[in-house]
Amino acid sequence: MTSAPIKAFMSDNAAAVHPRVWEAMRAADDPQPPYDNDAISQSLDERFTSLFGRPAWGLWIASGTAANCLALATLCEPHGGVVCHREAHIEADEGGAPGFYLHGAKLMLAEGDGAKLTPQAVRAVIDPIRPDVHWVQPHALSVTQATEYGRVYRTAEIAALAVLAKERGLGFHVDGARFGNAVASLGCLPADAAGPCDALSFGCIKNGGMSADAIVFFDEDRAKLARWRRKRAGHLQSKGRYLAAQIVALLEDDLWLANARAANAAAAEIAGACGDRLMQGFAFYDWGDDAARFVTAWNTREEDARALAQAIAAL
Amino acid sequence: MTSAPIKAFMSDNAAAVHPRVWEAMRAADDPQPPYDNDAISQSLDERFTSLFGRPAWGLWIASGTAANCLALATLCEPHGGVVCHREAHIEADEGGAPGFYLHGAKLMLAEGDGAKLTPQAVRAVIDPIRPDVHWVQPHALSVTQATEYGRVYRTAEIAALAVLAKERGLGFHVDGARFGNAVASLGCLPADAAGPCDALSFGCIKNGGMSADAIVFFDEDRAKLARWRRKRAGHLQSKGRYLAAQIVALLEDDLWLANARAANAAAAEIAGACGDRLMQGFAFYDWGDDAARFVTAWNTREEDARALAQAIAAL
Amino acid sequence: MTSAPIKAFMSDNAAAVHPRVWEAMRAADDPQPPYDNDAISQSLDERFTSLFGRPAWGLWIASGTAANCLALATLCEPHGGVVCHREAHIEADEGGAPGFYLHGAKLMLAEGDGAKLTPQAVRAVIDPIRPDVHWVQPHALSVTQATEYGRVYRTAEIAALAVLAKERGLGFHVDGARFGNAVASLGCLPADAAGPCDALSFGCIKNGGMSADAIVFFDEDRAKLARWRRKRAGHLQSKGRYLAAQIVALLEDDLWLANARAANAAAAEIAGACGDRLMQGFAFYDWGDDAARFVTAWNTREEDARALAQAIAAL
Amino acid sequence: MTSAPIKAFMSDNAAAVHPRVWEAMRAADDPQPPYDNDAISQSLDERFTSLFGRPAWGLWIASGTAANCLALATLCEPHGGVVCHREAHIEADEGGAPGFYLHGAKLMLAEGDGAKLTPQAVRAVIDPIRPDVHWVQPHALSVTQATEYGRVYRTAEIAALAVLAKERGLGFHVDGARFGNAVASLGCLPADAAGPCDALSFGCIKNGGMSADAIVFFDEDRAKLARWRRKRAGHLQSKGRYLAAQIVALLEDDLWLANARAANAAAAEIAGACGDRLMQGFAFYDWGDDAARFVTAWNTREEDARALAQAIAAL
Repeated sequence: MTSAPIKAFMSDNAAAVHPRVWEAMRAADDPQPPYDNDAISQSLDERFTSLFGRPAWGLWIASGTAANCLALATLCEPHGGVVCHREAHIEADEGGAPGFYLHGAKLMLAEGDGAKLTPQAVRAVIDPIRPDVHWVQPHALSVTQATEYGRVYRTAEIAALAVLAKERGLGFHVDGARFGNAVASLGCLPADAAGPCDALSFGCIKNGGMSADAIVFFDEDRAKLARWRRKRAGHLQSKGRYLAAQIVALLEDDLWLANARAANAAAAEIAGACGDRLMQGFAFYDWGDDAARFVTAWNTREEDARALAQAIAAL
Repeated sequence: MTSAPIKAFMSDNAAAVHPRVWEAMRAADDPQPPYDNDAISQSLDERFTSLFGRPAWGLWIASGTAANCLALATLCEPHGGVVCHREAHIEADEGGAPGFYLHGAKLMLAEGDGAKLTPQAVRAVIDPIRPDVHWVQPHALSVTQATEYGRVYRTAEIAALAVLAKERGLGFHVDGARFGNAVASLGCLPADAAGPCDALSFGCIKNGGMSADAIVFFDEDRAKLARWRRKRAGHLQSKGRYLAAQIVALLEDDLWLANARAANAAAAEIAGACGDRLMQGFAFYDWGDDAARFVTAWNTREEDARALAQAIAAL
Repeated sequence: MTSAPIKAFMSDNAAAVHPRVWEAMRAADDPQPPYDNDAISQSLDERFTSLFGRPAWGLWIASGTAANCLALATLCEPHGGVVCHREAHIEADEGGAPGFYLHGAKLMLAEGDGAKLTPQAVRAVIDPIRPDVHWVQPHALSVTQATEYGRVYRTAEIAALAVLAKERGLGFHVDGARFGNAVASLGCLPADAAGPCDALSFGCIKNGGMSADAIVFFDEDRAKLARWRRKRAGHLQSKGRYLAAQIVALLEDDLWLANARAANAAAAEIAGACGDRLMQGFAFYDWGDDAARFVTAWNTREEDARALAQAIAAL
Repeated sequence: MTSAPIKAFMSDNAAAVHPRVWEAMRAADDPQPPYDNDAISQSLDERFTSLFGRPAWGLWIASGTAANCLALATLCEPHGGVVCHREAHIEADEGGAPGFYLHGAKLMLAEGDGAKLTPQAVRAVIDPIRPDVHWVQPHALSVTQATEYGRVYRTAEIAALAVLAKERGLGFHVDGARFGNAVASLGCLPADAAGPCDALSFGCIKNGGMSADAIVFFDEDRAKLARWRRKRAGHLQSKGRYLAAQIVALLEDDLWLANARAANAAAAEIAGACGDRLMQGFAFYDWGDDAARFVTAWNTREEDARALAQAIAAL
């Protein structure tokens, strides 16, 4: 195996921008009102409403970290807490961004295989919390679909978590940095993969985009709040039409799903070569002392995936 | 006068991306390490060191608001204050971002014509402040070059402010959202237009870029601190090479200066038609009850500027 | 004039604790549940409900700064602003505490003689603010009764400000660090001196107390929110009964009003000697280049006040 | 066993104020400059310097929560983290105050029996943290002496933790809410019980005080920083002399140690009756499903302790 394929699996963050995304960005060059007052940005609400089959509001944002944290800032007050998995991206990989955006709110860590939460695991965290001012109270629940280990929540699983959140008065957020991969793997409607959540970080950057993820809200007040907070975070880019264009290009003709399917297929090919290391759903590989992580992307070449698979089989 | 030219002067935020910036972004499509680990991002320190003739560290960032606030967050502690003009962008137009990034630090407002500060105006703010815990103490000074009204600080003026800042132990920040226009107008070295500042927001987006401004630090510790804080603010984009490429394209062969000169020339043409409304230096027009604001950009067409000038002359 | 009387007028912050407050604190020595679970703390809601003639919730807190900032934190979100006078205590003398407690929200400064606001002055601040994310929006209005210059709002004046706040959707806070002096001066009901506000900082420390002011809320949800935030600010003292006892002692038989009347009377005596420097209402003196500030307290001795008055008359 | 003794063991937070503390407070009634400008407050630096045998700066503060959080705010930047035990008071019982005071910094949780940390446990937390902006970096280490379970660090244990902190560039904080009990139990010098820490929360309230704990700094710059932040947190009480007086009364003739010894003795009596539930050092009892917590204080009556011991023995 040469080093080229290895390099190709380093991170979907390194992947190139999809040609149709480039085209859409170039087409946005014509002058338009700044910030999110252009026609493309203004179309996002309608597009996400259509995609999810219920009233939705969509905001572009330049990173998954900012998407998650802005979303959570509308669901959790500074003195509250967000329940998430111990290995959730917001806890483990965002450089303390939740602490910044949520003004010091607390992440409350739950356990679960493959970074997956269950109602039981969530209850184990929140049930012992007495309604006492000495204890931070949970305000929100955040799950990652697909998880940081490439595991997917089945639609019944995510629905059960949403029910629990609602029962306990918790806002419900889905970190969908790789939401496309989850939907492609589940073969379900986007709405069912996200469950009846309050906010969804809808990842585009890892899926053929360049610099725009989306936050999708299912409540107008939260969306409005996020717009104030986005500006306040220096994330209201003046030429926002170039970000909106990326998202629209990925939504158009379900390019986002096609890209995710391509990445999943490449992952499956590799996984097939790995025997007992195979994980359920589409696969990103676990990593750790005895593990490797290979990340496929929308543009992983079939020949690279096959070469890697053969190399693994030959181990 | 038709409406087309009017629309063209709405905002430099709406201007198209320069062709050479587009080319550089496309050339960055080849996979590279994510975040700012790619070769283009890694080249920024050297490029800004060369541009300013002293050790410099350069970070890309997606907006001028974020550039200003991240820079100031390295110069002012949460319990301190930043002296700035009452009409400074950080005070008037950033949706409270300084309060967010500086964790509640205070903006201390000084007066001056055309949003320009003088040492005297700064002293009028800071001299009455006793070193008493009941009073917020100034930690930093921020000036805008060119100002929000299109006024420029001459090199001696900015140097005098830097001297005052140093005497009083204040960090010194220059908001250069339109720094290119200032340098082009002054006809001086970039280092002289910025003065011996600690941090400079080096605007690119209004000057032919798409989604990348730069923060330039002249101290390694502050640059390091800003890297932690940039991630924490959700501004460490995973495909950062596309941002770095924009900045490098503008620095290459001084495209940033050429663009700024073109915008200034268009502004001068219009200003020439305005008689006593003309303001010194290159001109963005004052606005208010009896004022209009026309903004030129790198791509303002000469014929549009002339048409507007004629229309004004005919009033 | 000897120096003793001068010293006596230095600050009401330096005054001794009233004997009946001491007695009440000693009587609280008997063990009771910690924090605010003791019977005395639990009685505050009822006592303030009775005092103001409408449902009220009362919390003890160790300083006027904390009282103001905790109250405002329930009325203004981090991305919002609080309109107040340029010389309001929260702007001028609290060491940036509002920035801390309100997570970077902005103070929006209005003008007015004697630190007094008018609806017109407030409108001059808020009317130009467009509902645009680049501009911080006002969320609350804070007035000081009596003002930092010893001026009082007449009941119609405070009512007019409350009406404006309500019309514009602003929370309405009254900083009553010297509320007793205002009520004593106005000779009206406490409810009329505070107007239909959402929260009142009810000062006790300057009026015979030791270490307890009160925050009075007129809405249960805000009171609950303040309880979470009080603990989070390290202000939920474990032996809270000693703070509650101070407040109850001052409320008992209207000791707070008697103390305020005594201070006002001493101030009036001095003011009578000052001719054209006399300010309306009860008087704390203006200070500045050609001014002096004498502060009377509950325990200002009549003979001291007279001695000072004679000294001033003899100037 | 009657309910009276049970009530007596509810919490040392509920205990009465020591008579000598009362006396000192009454003696402070004479007018003095406000805030911490009075002679008693000004004496704290010298008194703690003498107590610890190295230059020290002492600030009064109204709660242990505020003491801990203000101390940590001088040791950890907003983007950093504080390593502490999973059951440390700052993590488990302060209502999110560290998130507030540290502007969103992260608590990094280590394991250990009886809430006690070891160098090994601390390394297990910090060693895997790469110096990467995606990961929050540790800035400080906080240990509780005695721990939340009544365990004490021997002098060599605390010294070893301080050495590790220094090696890794971490600020070192000791939460001494029950520091007196630890010193009394160890029978060592205060300096040895605290180790070479940067800041110590020196608990007084649980040990005969009313409303004043102390923060002791061993570095002038941190002490200065804490003074700015104390005001900003609304904790600079205007009649601070009454707080200072409490601390001075407890330090005078080592009343703090005498009180702690009395509480430890009562605890030992009870513990003696508990057989295998006895924990090392002086004892506060574990609690949980099969546990009870009895808290002794400076004024636990010998007869109450004995009655409780007998009741336990009779179980």
